[in-house]
Amino acid sequence: MTYCVGMLLDTGLVFVSDSRTNAGVDQINTFRKTAVLERPGDRVVVLQFAGNLASTQSVMAILRQRIEEPGDHQNIFSCTTFFEVAGCVGEAIREVHRRDAESLQAFGVEFNVQIIVGGQIAGEPPRLFSVYAAGNFVEATPETTYFQIGESKYGKPILDRVLSRTSTLTVAAKCALVSMDSTIRSNLSVGMPLDLVVVRRDQLRVARHMSIEPNNPYFELIRNRWSEALREAFAVLPDPDWF
Amino acid sequence: MTYCVGMLLDTGLVFVSDSRTNAGVDQINTFRKTAVLERPGDRVVVLQFAGNLASTQSVMAILRQRIEEPGDHQNIFSCTTFFEVAGCVGEAIREVHRRDAESLQAFGVEFNVQIIVGGQIAGEPPRLFSVYAAGNFVEATPETTYFQIGESKYGKPILDRVLSRTSTLTVAAKCALVSMDSTIRSNLSVGMPLDLVVVRRDQLRVARHMSIEPNNPYFELIRNRWSEALREAFAVLPDPDWF
Repeated sequence: MTYCVGMLLDTGLVFVSDSRTNAGVDQINTFRKTAVLERPGDRVVVLQFAGNLASTQSVMAILRQRIEEPGDHQNIFSCTTFFEVAGCVGEAIREVHRRDAESLQAFGVEFNVQIIVGGQIAGEPPRLFSVYAAGNFVEATPETTYFQIGESKYGKPILDRVLSRTSTLTVAAKCALVSMDSTIRSNLSVGMPLDLVVVRRDQLRVARHMSIEPNNPYFELIRNRWSEALREAFAVLPDPDWF
Repeated sequence: MTYCVGMLLDTGLVFVSDSRTNAGVDQINTFRKTAVLERPGDRVVVLQFAGNLASTQSVMAILRQRIEEPGDHQNIFSCTTFFEVAGCVGEAIREVHRRDAESLQAFGVEFNVQIIVGGQIAGEPPRLFSVYAAGNFVEATPETTYFQIGESKYGKPILDRVLSRTSTLTVAAKCALVSMDSTIRSNLSVGMPLDLVVVRRDQLRVARHMSIEPNNPYFELIRNRWSEALREAFAVLPDPDWF
């Protein structure tokens, strides 16, 4: 399983993903689920992947190959809008579906690809899309601050409670890490290290791309303090007087 | 959808369930998902239901009917252990499955029943079981403080962080309500009013069975204070110094 969250704020974008993949409990591996394609000054495109690893890797391979050998295809660097970028991602998913879905079905495996793609192209504001397995997609509107893919439920309450479009990138990153912490604690199939990517509005390149390892002091601090803070907050909640 | 949590503590049991059922977004109703069968001084049995409402109502009807007209069947009042009570519940599920599953399948509907059953029979400690659609079941062991059925993920992190076997019934009830609050906020298909049942160890009857309506002052207090407390706790978490 996987957990990825992509956030669209007034001042840019924040992406956090885990790196655990598993095919049964005895086949656990670490694979990055975040990819960055950038041409500094012109565009920055960040992708996050959930679903069958074989399928999502193929999607990414197709997207990279089309940049190197465009042929007649549009590619992520030739698109003039981010809407077209989301369309490119959807087309790549459909190509993998045409190639793999029938064979997967023969083994009782559902074709499962979920992709978040966001970033900025010069001349546009930052944009964020969620692309489905069918290759269709939705865009974050002013009411939408984030998209999640994969194991999204454990980490959703904190996003709904504290995140808004006006949150700073720092607050958004902190919120994404707390959301990830709740998910990791509740679901063994989501694991460290984490990938964090921050894009500042109008910089047209990645501001920060870091790998957060299990011993990262800041993440450890967040984990411990958040646990303590929750327990304290719970302890001071008034008790019911029903008993 | 539904969310139910049943908790087994050193001093008794706490059960909280919502009451929303839906078959599509335009057919939403309120049905209680908690049932109590008790013979004060001898036994108290609390059941919580998730899954197809038609199926779970049938299960409960069979369980009640067997108490009234036992025939050759064991029933919840004739069982000598709680293990047998869980077996009775499993048998009732299997009877409904035999009657309904094929017809449901013809309409593409999966037979879906999940039941939590807990309580105490004189001579035994309090016990808690989770019964599956196949009629088999697991029992809470000393390491298991709770079972959840239905829409369980949003409300799980708080249970994992604050609940233990040594928690008081008051703390457990508070924790169940916070867990329910997180679920209701994140999932429209879980809704008020709530059913709360508390069983004190060795009382062999229900200590408290109340319906918590949307305007219940304590639940409103919990909701508001918990939201505030989370936002405050989040605000005082140190920011990353990466940006």
